[in-house]
Amino acid sequence: MESNGVDEQMKLVEGAAGYVLEDVPHFSDYIHDLPTYPNPLQSNPAYSVVRQYFVDEDDTVPQKIVVHKDTPRGTHFRRAGPRQKVYFKPADVRACIVTCGGLCPGLNTVIREIVCGLHFMYGVTEVIGVDCGFRGFYSKNTVTLTPKVVSDIHKRGGTILGTSRGGHETSKIVDNIQDREINQVYIIGGDGTQKGASAIYKEIRRRGLKVAVAGIPKTIDNDIPVIDKSFGFDTAVEEAQRAINAAHVEATSVENGIGLVKLMGRYSGFIAMYATLASRDVDCCLIPESPFYLEGKGGLYEFIAKRLRENGHMVIVIAEGAGQDLLAESIEQQDASGNKLLKDVGLWMSIKIKEYFAKQSKMDITLKYIDPTYMIRAIPANASDNVYSTLLAQSAVHGAMAGYTGFISGLVNGRHTYIPLNRITERQNKVVITDRMWARMLSSTNQPSFMNPPKGTTELAD
Amino acid sequence: MESNGVDEQMKLVEGAAGYVLEDVPHFSDYIHDLPTYPNPLQSNPAYSVVRQYFVDEDDTVPQKIVVHKDTPRGTHFRRAGPRQKVYFKPADVRACIVTCGGLCPGLNTVIREIVCGLHFMYGVTEVIGVDCGFRGFYSKNTVTLTPKVVSDIHKRGGTILGTSRGGHETSKIVDNIQDREINQVYIIGGDGTQKGASAIYKEIRRRGLKVAVAGIPKTIDNDIPVIDKSFGFDTAVEEAQRAINAAHVEATSVENGIGLVKLMGRYSGFIAMYATLASRDVDCCLIPESPFYLEGKGGLYEFIAKRLRENGHMVIVIAEGAGQDLLAESIEQQDASGNKLLKDVGLWMSIKIKEYFAKQSKMDITLKYIDPTYMIRAIPANASDNVYSTLLAQSAVHGAMAGYTGFISGLVNGRHTYIPLNRITERQNKVVITDRMWARMLSSTNQPSFMNPPKGTTELAD
Amino acid sequence: MESNGVDEQMKLVEGAAGYVLEDVPHFSDYIHDLPTYPNPLQSNPAYSVVRQYFVDEDDTVPQKIVVHKDTPRGTHFRRAGPRQKVYFKPADVRACIVTCGGLCPGLNTVIREIVCGLHFMYGVTEVIGVDCGFRGFYSKNTVTLTPKVVSDIHKRGGTILGTSRGGHETSKIVDNIQDREINQVYIIGGDGTQKGASAIYKEIRRRGLKVAVAGIPKTIDNDIPVIDKSFGFDTAVEEAQRAINAAHVEATSVENGIGLVKLMGRYSGFIAMYATLASRDVDCCLIPESPFYLEGKGGLYEFIAKRLRENGHMVIVIAEGAGQDLLAESIEQQDASGNKLLKDVGLWMSIKIKEYFAKQSKMDITLKYIDPTYMIRAIPANASDNVYSTLLAQSAVHGAMAGYTGFISGLVNGRHTYIPLNRITERQNKVVITDRMWARMLSSTNQPSFMNPPKGTTELAD
Amino acid sequence: MESNGVDEQMKLVEGAAGYVLEDVPHFSDYIHDLPTYPNPLQSNPAYSVVRQYFVDEDDTVPQKIVVHKDTPRGTHFRRAGPRQKVYFKPADVRACIVTCGGLCPGLNTVIREIVCGLHFMYGVTEVIGVDCGFRGFYSKNTVTLTPKVVSDIHKRGGTILGTSRGGHETSKIVDNIQDREINQVYIIGGDGTQKGASAIYKEIRRRGLKVAVAGIPKTIDNDIPVIDKSFGFDTAVEEAQRAINAAHVEATSVENGIGLVKLMGRYSGFIAMYATLASRDVDCCLIPESPFYLEGKGGLYEFIAKRLRENGHMVIVIAEGAGQDLLAESIEQQDASGNKLLKDVGLWMSIKIKEYFAKQSKMDITLKYIDPTYMIRAIPANASDNVYSTLLAQSAVHGAMAGYTGFISGLVNGRHTYIPLNRITERQNKVVITDRMWARMLSSTNQPSFMNPPKGTTELAD
Repeated sequence: MESNGVDEQMKLVEGAAGYVLEDVPHFSDYIHDLPTYPNPLQSNPAYSVVRQYFVDEDDTVPQKIVVHKDTPRGTHFRRAGPRQKVYFKPADVRACIVTCGGLCPGLNTVIREIVCGLHFMYGVTEVIGVDCGFRGFYSKNTVTLTPKVVSDIHKRGGTILGTSRGGHETSKIVDNIQDREINQVYIIGGDGTQKGASAIYKEIRRRGLKVAVAGIPKTIDNDIPVIDKSFGFDTAVEEAQRAINAAHVEATSVENGIGLVKLMGRYSGFIAMYATLASRDVDCCLIPESPFYLEGKGGLYEFIAKRLRENGHMVIVIAEGAGQDLLAESIEQQDASGNKLLKDVGLWMSIKIKEYFAKQSKMDITLKYIDPTYMIRAIPANASDNVYSTLLAQSAVHGAMAGYTGFISGLVNGRHTYIPLNRITERQNKVVITDRMWARMLSSTNQPSFMNPPKGTTELAD
Repeated sequence: MESNGVDEQMKLVEGAAGYVLEDVPHFSDYIHDLPTYPNPLQSNPAYSVVRQYFVDEDDTVPQKIVVHKDTPRGTHFRRAGPRQKVYFKPADVRACIVTCGGLCPGLNTVIREIVCGLHFMYGVTEVIGVDCGFRGFYSKNTVTLTPKVVSDIHKRGGTILGTSRGGHETSKIVDNIQDREINQVYIIGGDGTQKGASAIYKEIRRRGLKVAVAGIPKTIDNDIPVIDKSFGFDTAVEEAQRAINAAHVEATSVENGIGLVKLMGRYSGFIAMYATLASRDVDCCLIPESPFYLEGKGGLYEFIAKRLRENGHMVIVIAEGAGQDLLAESIEQQDASGNKLLKDVGLWMSIKIKEYFAKQSKMDITLKYIDPTYMIRAIPANASDNVYSTLLAQSAVHGAMAGYTGFISGLVNGRHTYIPLNRITERQNKVVITDRMWARMLSSTNQPSFMNPPKGTTELAD
Repeated sequence: MESNGVDEQMKLVEGAAGYVLEDVPHFSDYIHDLPTYPNPLQSNPAYSVVRQYFVDEDDTVPQKIVVHKDTPRGTHFRRAGPRQKVYFKPADVRACIVTCGGLCPGLNTVIREIVCGLHFMYGVTEVIGVDCGFRGFYSKNTVTLTPKVVSDIHKRGGTILGTSRGGHETSKIVDNIQDREINQVYIIGGDGTQKGASAIYKEIRRRGLKVAVAGIPKTIDNDIPVIDKSFGFDTAVEEAQRAINAAHVEATSVENGIGLVKLMGRYSGFIAMYATLASRDVDCCLIPESPFYLEGKGGLYEFIAKRLRENGHMVIVIAEGAGQDLLAESIEQQDASGNKLLKDVGLWMSIKIKEYFAKQSKMDITLKYIDPTYMIRAIPANASDNVYSTLLAQSAVHGAMAGYTGFISGLVNGRHTYIPLNRITERQNKVVITDRMWARMLSSTNQPSFMNPPKGTTELAD
Repeated sequence: MESNGVDEQMKLVEGAAGYVLEDVPHFSDYIHDLPTYPNPLQSNPAYSVVRQYFVDEDDTVPQKIVVHKDTPRGTHFRRAGPRQKVYFKPADVRACIVTCGGLCPGLNTVIREIVCGLHFMYGVTEVIGVDCGFRGFYSKNTVTLTPKVVSDIHKRGGTILGTSRGGHETSKIVDNIQDREINQVYIIGGDGTQKGASAIYKEIRRRGLKVAVAGIPKTIDNDIPVIDKSFGFDTAVEEAQRAINAAHVEATSVENGIGLVKLMGRYSGFIAMYATLASRDVDCCLIPESPFYLEGKGGLYEFIAKRLRENGHMVIVIAEGAGQDLLAESIEQQDASGNKLLKDVGLWMSIKIKEYFAKQSKMDITLKYIDPTYMIRAIPANASDNVYSTLLAQSAVHGAMAGYTGFISGLVNGRHTYIPLNRITERQNKVVITDRMWARMLSSTNQPSFMNPPKGTTELAD
């Protein structure tokens, strides 16, 4: 057994024409002479009819697929799926599942399918649920998870395991994993959670334990890099339509009506952007990646006044993380009380817009503010996210059984892959506002680019 | 022509066994020798197959129908429906429709059916829509309403006419009605609006005009008295389930989770009460009619702590007008900034509960606050409200054609009736907390009655 | 104890001004000297705050409430609700619930609320569920029903108890009731089922047993008389809108498109009529109560051709029991095979219309047939039906505890009442096509009245 | 100008490491010296902020992306998107849009976005809609399409242009295109339609016309090859859940209940497979690609009996094209009448299953058959399909403006590409039952593989 800093780094395999495989860790990297077993799926009736069921060990998926005829082949990831050989006897597996962070449609489906995948595909019967996030590892009882217990949970929103933020103490968690003799850890959560998963994996490796750590990235905001999109995202965009529709109805039913909808997205505006594109009733979409300003020429107030004069109404969608610079500045200038509320950019902007038009007094506006956040997060996954969550869970199970660890299960260019944990915790996925998708959005709203704030604008902001 | 104070009062007709009819005004009360015409419905193919299609002039509907074998018969209202004779030639009718106040599911259906009812049942072709509430009478262009224009509007939320609050100047409105030669005025709005309708009716009567004023009561809160329920109420209760479900999912997915949902109801808690009864996931329902207190024995905080200890989670539904006394007191003690936001009882209570449990520090709670108000108001009517709105509109049309005025069209004990305008503006409908429906609600939540605040509680409230 | 034919008849109580009470049977009618107990609700915290909680013994509700000032008061029913005294000690109660016939939204809510009502209001803990309809009494195990078991069932469609048709053998059922020492029997089902309930009640009375028989009428078709409407009806009309919308989209997306929707209603066309009124997209509504014919002047084919020429498309709604005379005649003329399918009037009519226009060959039509029956029946109750089902169940529980038997719990003019079982099994509720509601429907579709079939039409029908 | 057989073939460009580009035709292939113009998007404010907005001429997307480090690079398609130069002056463009075949969610979105894309991105104002499919080219008036006309159509199901099947006469259509001076033809339809599009393209090329032919593949069944999935597919799978849920409720509410749901899929079972995977309540999924048999060991009847004995209920999903061999055989043995109905495999199978269990008489089953086809086809696109349809339409517009023709706009591995028309008409996309997705499905239902019919089974089938 060996374990040093170098091993924890990314495993790179190179090939012809610029081919690079960013491989995921494997038990065999740090534990020698582990026995392997034939994959029980070989005798599963459902799978036995399928030729070439097992994934070829050499299968990989390129990250960049818009190519020229001579471009180098670039980074690839290992394809997910069942392997001929597994590194666990089913009877020896003791798996646990933990969900962390905010709610997201599909959480229960992922839980369900890890349990059912282990049970029906591999004959694993010992699966426990950790209660309420990472802290459940050392402070809580666990839940026994069986196919029967999870049978209908995909029809419910939320997570049956409970969740929490933070509460991560790596060595206590790994102690607990050892104490409970757990050898497969499935961690469902966002980038903070996966950083925790990465630390757990490193500590496990340091201790030389044969314990697989598999992450399933969860982020309703879609802010995890590399992967095509996160589970629950489609459902969230769909459900956001209700709020936008309501804002549109409110806005069009009064003179100078403004409907303002806050959507999720602390650091990235994907939900706001896609919900705007899907709706076509939105006049302005504000996201964290694209700065804007309120006053003066080319500012938001001017645009609102213009759109109201033209159409008599207006719908604005704002991601929760948009305009944080303006908000911070504004709050500094106020006394303490009420501040907590004002950290909600939607409420803050409601007040600013109302104040501006009251002061201007040329235009009597009616603004209705809608915050559908919790109504979106809490619904069950739609059919497409249900299927997607299922495949993510099954991929994670196949990977852990095959001895991979320190990986997440993720979709890359429509193919299920294993991605090294550190690849997705390095940075966040963001809307690239120099890309065409943002241009499409701008084109659908015809909003200003907010690119050229007048000098001194920010000083005058409040 | 005569017009004096007495005539404007309620018309009472008495009968045997304590029978009283609270009749609605009629043109013939103040204009003599008006010609009448046979109802055009007599030759309408749809109606000609129906025997006894016309409502008997003497048909009335009792207000009180829980009776003993010897109880007096009590107050009755005139039954709505088409009469043998009408007081307008269809070609002479010039009708207008105005919508006032907040949005409510079904507004567009009522508009549609007044237009279609006048057109298809009576052959009336001149119907105009007044723009954006009462103020539209003197400051705005009007919209021509035809069956084609309104054909699909019942599938949309909001009101195609636009709406506004206030803006009522009786004599200017009546001047405008005269100027435009309007002789039927349909006014859709809540109790404030119907008070306006009453003033318009009185002024029209004072001027001796042959102009029918018909109100269709609109109140998503169900706070209009006498009538069984207002249109849009069922749809609102149905849609509120989404928010309660989301609150329940959020609450059950964390440790000591609290889901708090604010529902409509400034002065009466019907939506909160019915939504709670329909859901079964609510642990506490707070409405304006039932005072409560926060601190001390039997208070809300104590109940929250108890329920969290027992179940680990809790869902609270609060009507927007609940706890206004506590809110007023609390705000007085604060400085000005942030106050506007705090007028939202849901936000205010979120903060109070969080502060209390942070201070107590024995219990780490997670509270999620959901305000679905505009998402509820803005949806289209469901099937049941669509049919109900249709019948209300048709009744109003029949009444105006038959020469009745100063009335609203309303459902009493399941029967469509004409009710004098002043009867519904005298007081508000409220949840009677000494009635069984409230007891049923209490029984479904097992919440405390908040009947015995400890001495000095209110002084300590903040 | 006495029991004879006369006693089983309706109990009539007369009062002044033509007042008649059609009372329900009571234990004291045939068992003397039964002890009574104070109602446990007196000490229930939820109810103790409500003044006048108990229903006055003399409270009744009139059946006819469109009255003249001198009309006789007519038939009344006993008001439902808790009584001061009950005829059971909670610890002695052993209740059972059975559901019979087709599915209907709200079944699970009724089951839930009988269980919860008995448990939380009266402290009754022994409630069993009879499996799969009447036959479950003698051929099946039972299910123990507790508040925990039924906690979430109102969110699911169908019935957790299972259901079946027929299987009624009165004496075997009553034997079984005696064997199991059951003393409250709650029977949820349609008119056939309630006839069975009536037979069970009579046999129980003949045997002199202190066993309460309470019916909750269930009929998605709304074909039970006396009561305002049956639970699940609103939900069914709402869900039917989906099918009508789809038919409308299909019809408008092709040239000469016809969308044909079959809705429930074997003997009465309420769902078809209300769904048509709520939708406004329907061109023709065919129900069992209103005969029609296909060929010749004034017939359906002529109307279809006319509407297609005018609008280019058409939506037809047909209740499953409409046109049975035409169907019967048509089938007689065919050979045996395929007949079973053709008993579906929707399929049959699809073929007839296609054949007619193929033969005529002047018009190329495209007909799409939609049968949403099972998709409607199987959904959970909407909010309004959830509340309604709850109150029906609670009323039944109050009645049984108070010693009433042989009754159903039903809404009359918006008030909950107890109605003698035989009153609702005597006849079926039907759409009265000489009433205004049908005229409203005709007016909304502008369809022909089909009143004057040309001579010899039926002979030529196929 | 040149035009010969060879040119109409696929254009292949080869590169290093086995790279092949299957290119799409371009005006310059058969018309020389055409002028080009700068892309108007260069001055569009929405696009000017986006760096590198235009697609590099050399951008391509690989078809096969599961690769080994040394595998050849294989087939690629041209990346879709705006080009620096366009081959039309906006003022010269005269575009037309036609929709053909069955309804599919998203049709109206595609129409809307072709119109809005041409208008807002390129300043093209002349767009006409062809009425009711290909036949509309020579027998019908056209519709003028403007952004205003199409503004809200994406919220409606169906197609505002109308549709039809067949009616394709290449030379008449091309004559008509010339007569109307149309130079961009957008054809939305399935594989039959795209074969027609291909013939139109070839004839246009033969005549040497500068007319772009762009296809947008439409198939709710997802049976078009090469592309990732067709628009509307997600929405269809989502909506199918309603029918499956209803079938599950019906099946579980009776003894030995069977719910049978027929879903779309004449030649490929994608909807059935994904709907089954998303639901988890299905016990058996039958698709055209996987043969099955009814009687004998390992047959469907045996499996039904087994599942009913184990669970008491069962849900079967059958694609409309499944079991056509059995159906054909069965129908041959019957006389003519009733046959038409029996071509519906769902109805046929309902009868067969009922007959079998009636004959066996050991098991009393209740089967409910649901056919939600038209209720699924007719709904509007969900948010995800709305965005997807938008991008397909915009890609088609960019391609036609850039002078490409004879192509379809399609998603390949998540990237928008241009694919030669003949590539997608050569074969159909089918569920590969030797692939893992089918194994996942089998694993979720645990149904038999139906791989080894007993000898003589088919002979005995009826």
